[in-house]
Amino acid sequence: MRKLLVQHADILTPDAEERILRDANIAIDGGKIVAIGETPHEFAADEIIDAKNHVALPGFFNAHTHAAMTLLRGSAEDLPLDRWFNEGIWRTESAVREDDVYWGTALAACEMIRSGTVGMADHYFWMHQSARVVQEAGMKALLGWCVFGSDFAAEMGPTTLALTSDFVAEFQNSAGGRIKTILAPHSPYISTTRALADAADVARKLSVGCHIHVSESQGQVDNSFKQFGKSPVAYLNDLGIFDNPSIAAHAIYVNDEDIEILREKKVSVVACPKTHFKLAMRTTRIVDLMRAGVHVALGTDGAASNNTLDMLEVARLAALAQKHDTGDATVLSSMQTLKLATRHGARAMGFANSGVLQVGADADLILIDMDKPHLAPRHNLAANIVHSAQGSDVNYVIVDGQVLLRKGELTTLDQEKIMRHVEKRGLEIVRGALTQTQRYSVQETRQGA
Amino acid sequence: MRKLLVQHADILTPDAEERILRDANIAIDGGKIVAIGETPHEFAADEIIDAKNHVALPGFFNAHTHAAMTLLRGSAEDLPLDRWFNEGIWRTESAVREDDVYWGTALAACEMIRSGTVGMADHYFWMHQSARVVQEAGMKALLGWCVFGSDFAAEMGPTTLALTSDFVAEFQNSAGGRIKTILAPHSPYISTTRALADAADVARKLSVGCHIHVSESQGQVDNSFKQFGKSPVAYLNDLGIFDNPSIAAHAIYVNDEDIEILREKKVSVVACPKTHFKLAMRTTRIVDLMRAGVHVALGTDGAASNNTLDMLEVARLAALAQKHDTGDATVLSSMQTLKLATRHGARAMGFANSGVLQVGADADLILIDMDKPHLAPRHNLAANIVHSAQGSDVNYVIVDGQVLLRKGELTTLDQEKIMRHVEKRGLEIVRGALTQTQRYSVQETRQGA
Repeated sequence: MRKLLVQHADILTPDAEERILRDANIAIDGGKIVAIGETPHEFAADEIIDAKNHVALPGFFNAHTHAAMTLLRGSAEDLPLDRWFNEGIWRTESAVREDDVYWGTALAACEMIRSGTVGMADHYFWMHQSARVVQEAGMKALLGWCVFGSDFAAEMGPTTLALTSDFVAEFQNSAGGRIKTILAPHSPYISTTRALADAADVARKLSVGCHIHVSESQGQVDNSFKQFGKSPVAYLNDLGIFDNPSIAAHAIYVNDEDIEILREKKVSVVACPKTHFKLAMRTTRIVDLMRAGVHVALGTDGAASNNTLDMLEVARLAALAQKHDTGDATVLSSMQTLKLATRHGARAMGFANSGVLQVGADADLILIDMDKPHLAPRHNLAANIVHSAQGSDVNYVIVDGQVLLRKGELTTLDQEKIMRHVEKRGLEIVRGALTQTQRYSVQETRQGA
Repeated sequence: MRKLLVQHADILTPDAEERILRDANIAIDGGKIVAIGETPHEFAADEIIDAKNHVALPGFFNAHTHAAMTLLRGSAEDLPLDRWFNEGIWRTESAVREDDVYWGTALAACEMIRSGTVGMADHYFWMHQSARVVQEAGMKALLGWCVFGSDFAAEMGPTTLALTSDFVAEFQNSAGGRIKTILAPHSPYISTTRALADAADVARKLSVGCHIHVSESQGQVDNSFKQFGKSPVAYLNDLGIFDNPSIAAHAIYVNDEDIEILREKKVSVVACPKTHFKLAMRTTRIVDLMRAGVHVALGTDGAASNNTLDMLEVARLAALAQKHDTGDATVLSSMQTLKLATRHGARAMGFANSGVLQVGADADLILIDMDKPHLAPRHNLAANIVHSAQGSDVNYVIVDGQVLLRKGELTTLDQEKIMRHVEKRGLEIVRGALTQTQRYSVQETRQGA
């Protein structure tokens, strides 16, 4: 494996010490960081990256997304959650085919790598197609094949518990350990009790957790109490869904008992503040959860609700939203926010040796070009990154020592080909769904076309 | 004056018709748009811009900023409004000198032009320095020299009403009409009643309005009722501050009577949602104000609170914040949001012939490069711009027919020289203030330095 040397970087590692090293080097060998600061005397690099004017930090981990939904970006705008589902997404998704998942996920990977994301927790269908993209792209991923366990299954291609557990067995720790797998029952409000209990059983047998949507609206919580006499979190816990380390996406409406369950079961709660705001929801109470000892990470959700897969944007919005909603400007400092987007995400996805820049850690890091007017002057590097940087300021992305983005150019993916395919196919999908139903309304694509 | 032809653009003009023209041309002559759609047969362009894969829209107008505060970007982080003022900004600003305003504003102009802003309402000190930058940069601006009318004046260089009204007289409609001026009393909570009444008198005599901070916190409103028996808006109105078209920045805490005053006096309320969120404030009730018939525009405030001067980011956050705060995902559609950031801003700043793409309008427009993974597919151009684009996707900026940004490169400003100066001087200012007071705490600049 190649030896890589990053020279003259300002290294920002949001670990316990929150330290910044100036004009320092990072030596990488065998996919691991072997030195930070001074380069070992005997180190003979195959590639040297001059990181002058760059900040090095751990790459971002996007802990909840539906990557292939890039196909539907912008197709269901300015709608509340129920209409976004019913008139928008469920309809258009019925026109998505297996092949589309490859291309949509490939577009997602282009966007994610270009904005500094090294790993994603992807929750969708036909996940061997997502795995193919992850293998080719060189990213890391925690992949879960969504299963509904209800009549919805018929509309969304083959998705049964047997199939998804076969997927786990086949792909767990594949791609040199870059791919991990998880079960992905959709949610307590769509999946049946039987389907959830079965998923929990299989998860225990396979020694994996579950990646599931939880408590996005007050209505979901009210229904759960009416139907089951308990909150969605308590209901899932009683079914055994959280018995292995799991991901609860959203978890916006949680009570004190829920928070105690999430903490005790070491569930990672993933906040997706941009999607929450866009769909006029409240948002995950990141600060309250963290104070109670719950592990919190950040995600973009799918591009159909979030419109980007940009973790810098999500990190910024998480900090801004928590300050606004709590009325306390001191919460979620830039360093803490970076920690959520990097180390916490890596841990949520089971990549325990990533999300931090230290000797022995996986070499999963990014270099941000600070030589930009909006990043000057450098009073506070962490604040400049969280509150001023753009995804396009990410200039290098390295995963397991492999350079996936070099001087802003993708090295593993054919961006032009992927964009051309998705541009054409994305419009076909939405127009196809439109023709089928005659109810779905697409505004902009009709105007002046 | 040069003739300019923009070819093959998708033209999005958020006017009353909200239309999109595909693969259309824009012909520019004498600083005005002379044709849209087909190019006139006899039009002989001096420069042709190939805008294939680009969207053309009116440039952004940033209707409330303190441009030179780029010097302090990131110097006072994660602090509530009162501590941000008292421990942060007031102290460091006491070390800002006249020359600094030129350089800080020049850095701001680099950042603004690169992210598609064609005009700014700048509210600061030594405004002839800001005017110098605007002249050189080729932007448009509404400039107001801040006056406190209290003991603060002594700390912030020469700032008296006489001086600021001389500034108005000298610079009104200068730079070929690109510079307009306004009076800029700081706020009802800092300026004295006498100073505000005097400013209103002078404003009437000079036929200009006032650009003033209003009702940022509940405390300010409570104090106003205690001191004056009325709200800040009513108090300013009774003093005559709003007698000519004026800008009320923030106006977060307003009652029904205030809203009626703002509507009747045609005051432009400028929302700065990123600053509001960052400082844990509530935010301007854009939707309520617009429904009541108040004119609303958007601004970035200064980079010391907002961290960027990026109007795309502010437009996005305005839409997201209004959806979240009102609980209604249908409010502030992408087209409406673009209108706030363009046409409404132009009107707030007195550039009545700008902010729209139509024949006869000032040629103030931008081209956004859509050939990016995060902007595909193109189901909805307006949504892709408001909810997915980055400032760095702006590839061309044109003001009065002059190209200020060409293929992402600034044509009028020496970015490297400006950045080098501000990087050095910004750190000097903050460290100088630090030494003076021994109280101001700068975290990151000390770490590992």
